[in-house]
Amino acid sequence: MGEKNIKMVIEYDGTNYAGFQRQSKHPTIQAELEIALTTILREKIKVTGSGRTDAGVHALYQVINFKTTKDCNLNRLQYSLNSLLSDDISVKKTEEVNLSFHARRSAVWREYKYFVLNKSYPSPFFKKYAYLVTSELDIEKMKEAAHFLIGTHDFSSFTVLASRPENPERTIYEFTCERKDFPVERLVVFKIQANAFLHNMVRVMLGTLLKVGSGNLAPEEVKRILETRDRTQAGPTVAAKGLFLTYVSYE
Amino acid sequence: MGEKNIKMVIEYDGTNYAGFQRQSKHPTIQAELEIALTTILREKIKVTGSGRTDAGVHALYQVINFKTTKDCNLNRLQYSLNSLLSDDISVKKTEEVNLSFHARRSAVWREYKYFVLNKSYPSPFFKKYAYLVTSELDIEKMKEAAHFLIGTHDFSSFTVLASRPENPERTIYEFTCERKDFPVERLVVFKIQANAFLHNMVRVMLGTLLKVGSGNLAPEEVKRILETRDRTQAGPTVAAKGLFLTYVSYE
Repeated sequence: MGEKNIKMVIEYDGTNYAGFQRQSKHPTIQAELEIALTTILREKIKVTGSGRTDAGVHALYQVINFKTTKDCNLNRLQYSLNSLLSDDISVKKTEEVNLSFHARRSAVWREYKYFVLNKSYPSPFFKKYAYLVTSELDIEKMKEAAHFLIGTHDFSSFTVLASRPENPERTIYEFTCERKDFPVERLVVFKIQANAFLHNMVRVMLGTLLKVGSGNLAPEEVKRILETRDRTQAGPTVAAKGLFLTYVSYE
Repeated sequence: MGEKNIKMVIEYDGTNYAGFQRQSKHPTIQAELEIALTTILREKIKVTGSGRTDAGVHALYQVINFKTTKDCNLNRLQYSLNSLLSDDISVKKTEEVNLSFHARRSAVWREYKYFVLNKSYPSPFFKKYAYLVTSELDIEKMKEAAHFLIGTHDFSSFTVLASRPENPERTIYEFTCERKDFPVERLVVFKIQANAFLHNMVRVMLGTLLKVGSGNLAPEEVKRILETRDRTQAGPTVAAKGLFLTYVSYE
């Protein structure tokens, strides 16, 4: 009896989706989840995500919540959901939480990772999960540039002009860049933690950093670009496929 | 002038192919390579692989060779080939070798790896690259079982009856099994090195070992199964998608 609030940790391959948020004409992660949950629980379910991810962006750790009046065994619910959902989406963890928990509003910080394959030819195995840069990247210069972005700033230079919110200030807590050996490839991995992100913020910052890494922009120029609050000064928006939502913290 | 022998190391995602070897009605890796090379070199090219891989099997390190009378810059050839080929296939290395080099006949040993995702729900990112086993696997028991397969044996129990060659003896040099942390998942990785393999040999051995790992077969039964030389005694042929050709040695 009574309303229950269910929190789930999910992961998804975003390649074939128009992003997280429900849309009328295109498949989205939210719509997939709502259809499956509504089918299983036999009542209309509305899912809230910790944040939108854009079309083609992946998630290794996305948090959602929804309310239901139905009694359900949570292990069985997760099992049914994984059976019913497309194999692009998996539910990793399911728990009942306080009614006040809200996947987006309760979130304290988010973490994204961006994967770059830095070699002269593409990989069949990372073609959907990493962005190929054939010129050799200077990691130290990119670290130097990333350092200017850490802290609380107006990130207007690094977002979609049309979707800039009233308050474009965000706080980046960590922004790292390193070469990392994966079983099949060596990748350049960028990790960014912030309280929240503006629309496209990670991808525009990355487009700018990759200009630095390939010698087309001096690291200290990133400081100037940040201060102009002018999107036209920053680099391009890099491909969605290299971007993964990797953590959402509620503490 | 004169004939040249070119050796290439390639990798491929085998999901959408009917295996390595050319077939009249289905797309294969060999056909893709021959069409692309024939286009670039403007002469009919016949490609030899180190061995066939079955439909759906992947390769991180497959070796091919072909002969050409055309003069060509090898860097440029590799670059053109990577541009022309499907993004399921990449050329990693290209070199000219002695005319006597033959990708299959010169090969001394091969290595395959098999990836198992051992958890209660599937992964969107490994759905094409690992086989899901939901019951907890006993690694030590599988190691014990694998030990009986190392050495020179008649592997008739572990091959397709119809394609058993006159001499079904092969020598396994190494057969390991361990849990390994991948960036996104922890996988069970099997590594098998042998002078050569019978048709489906790795997949039938794996199907048998997974029965041991999930407690449905005693490790020492594998010794008995090997000695019967009877395919019906062994376990099922596991899914192709978890199998990767990972090395071919010429020394």
